[in-house]
Amino acid sequence: MFKPLVVIALGGNAMIKGKQRGTLEEQIENVTQTAKQIMKVIPKWRVVITHGNGPQVGNLMLQMEAGSHPPYNRPSFKMDVCGSMTQGQIGYLIQNILGNLLVTEGPPSRLDPSKKIKVATIITQVVVSKDDPAFENPTKPVGPFYTKEQVDRIREEHPDFTIIEDAGRGYRRVVPSPDPIEIYEKDQVNDLLEAGFILVASGGGGIPVLKNPDGTVSGVEAVIDKDLAGERLANDTKAEAFAILTDTDKVYLNYKTPEQRGIDRMTVAEVEKYLEEGAFGNKLKGSMGPKLKAAIRFLKDGGKKVVITTPELAAAALDGEAGTIIVP
Amino acid sequence: MFKPLVVIALGGNAMIKGKQRGTLEEQIENVTQTAKQIMKVIPKWRVVITHGNGPQVGNLMLQMEAGSHPPYNRPSFKMDVCGSMTQGQIGYLIQNILGNLLVTEGPPSRLDPSKKIKVATIITQVVVSKDDPAFENPTKPVGPFYTKEQVDRIREEHPDFTIIEDAGRGYRRVVPSPDPIEIYEKDQVNDLLEAGFILVASGGGGIPVLKNPDGTVSGVEAVIDKDLAGERLANDTKAEAFAILTDTDKVYLNYKTPEQRGIDRMTVAEVEKYLEEGAFGNKLKGSMGPKLKAAIRFLKDGGKKVVITTPELAAAALDGEAGTIIVP
Repeated sequence: MFKPLVVIALGGNAMIKGKQRGTLEEQIENVTQTAKQIMKVIPKWRVVITHGNGPQVGNLMLQMEAGSHPPYNRPSFKMDVCGSMTQGQIGYLIQNILGNLLVTEGPPSRLDPSKKIKVATIITQVVVSKDDPAFENPTKPVGPFYTKEQVDRIREEHPDFTIIEDAGRGYRRVVPSPDPIEIYEKDQVNDLLEAGFILVASGGGGIPVLKNPDGTVSGVEAVIDKDLAGERLANDTKAEAFAILTDTDKVYLNYKTPEQRGIDRMTVAEVEKYLEEGAFGNKLKGSMGPKLKAAIRFLKDGGKKVVITTPELAAAALDGEAGTIIVP
Repeated sequence: MFKPLVVIALGGNAMIKGKQRGTLEEQIENVTQTAKQIMKVIPKWRVVITHGNGPQVGNLMLQMEAGSHPPYNRPSFKMDVCGSMTQGQIGYLIQNILGNLLVTEGPPSRLDPSKKIKVATIITQVVVSKDDPAFENPTKPVGPFYTKEQVDRIREEHPDFTIIEDAGRGYRRVVPSPDPIEIYEKDQVNDLLEAGFILVASGGGGIPVLKNPDGTVSGVEAVIDKDLAGERLANDTKAEAFAILTDTDKVYLNYKTPEQRGIDRMTVAEVEKYLEEGAFGNKLKGSMGPKLKAAIRFLKDGGKKVVITTPELAAAALDGEAGTIIVP
């Protein structure tokens, strides 16, 4: 019988932690630690991995900006292409490091027990709608902070940019963060899953594309939330579980107040009630909001279990022994 | 019955032509023209695409160099990681543009005739040997030309670099160009091929990795010739044909001399004889050498047919009506 399938969404800290600059050495060390935790999940689960790319794509956009001036004068790319480059980069690191752990310590492949399980990275486009209200109201900050002087030049060079003032910290470009609709390469992902591979897919929330009336797709300047895209991936692969790995061991009520209390288990109805009451506190304004939204969607779409925890606790959480577990 | 399989190796000019800087617009236009030619091959052949990445990885390395100084101070990556980033970038462009042509004009998928054939890009590592003499004698120039003053700084910042003087044009870093041994993700490629997908794989000659005694692989600073890696890909997928697409319609004897003569058809023995005699002239010192070497290897390993021609003539050449055809 097939082992059940889990989609694991890795937060930024799985690759670049807190104040790190994101050197190759740092990323290799962090991915190695994360991959060791994923190894603990593999004996009981088939695994699809997705991941954020915030710091990586931020660095790449800065490097392109730096290289666009004399004496370099190299052409910069739009955000969809930058996204594809970070999918290659992070996919390679995960595929290489996790693949190496599988070679030395991994279980045999289901279809060919003479071989170990292998990893594949699929370059992934994710369809968004041009009618998404996010395109009218870009909110996701990307790239560097600018001074007033720099902003005037940036506005001249890029009249299509939306730039907002970030109180006290300068100016920053914002882009739309539309809802993901469909993993465009879902057939490719499902085929490789069926054959027993571990997949890395939809990195950085996927390369955002709009679907044209004739069914073709066109890249668009936007950033898709990686947990919401991970939910689509979990849905499109008919995963049983969705594991959202981040930097807290569980979801907390009244986070960072004297009443803070970790939650072991919630139903969708309870999450919705807590969300209405604002019970998750400040943390919700950061990254917990999209995670809970993704959790609710996955469970309403037929998923059985969402866990929210750290990479270190992922295997235990999937066993019901750690983290926050959310059920229908 | 399965259609026969062809591995198509796209030269740099399929993405960035001659004096172009490689802007996104230029690359999209060039890839669109190339994809239209590949569409003519698809009715008779299953297709795996590989491609060069010279100008793209050169631009990326310059952008990283530019971004490594104040006020940016972003971390640069090694060549294996830069290679993975260009696999994502070029793979996305080919997958998106060819995929769109398939949506509107493509044949149905073999396994599910209600769908069109789709494209998948696989991030690909290619194994090389640490005993390859190339590591003792790096010859492949990468990145920018440096002045004498710049070279002194570069040598201090990167004591591991080998830098050579390029007569009259300044100084340049050279890296090893070892022989490809094995497409590390060949199982992933073959599984998707079996399921009826068109593949983009081993871009830029693949991410070069060394195989360690325990079977794990580690990235290494090197560049693998994309035609020689394409030959491994053709061998590892048991392709019937290998199409090397470049900027000349066929291979020429006594190239660029009054005795220049295009070749319609050659056997391996004839190629070897011509090579011994130096009959291909100056052109051989450029990119034709590795192409003919790759052709000989493919045909000696069991391949049936190699064509060397332009993208425009690819379909006709595979029908035996254009280009240079090389047979065992």
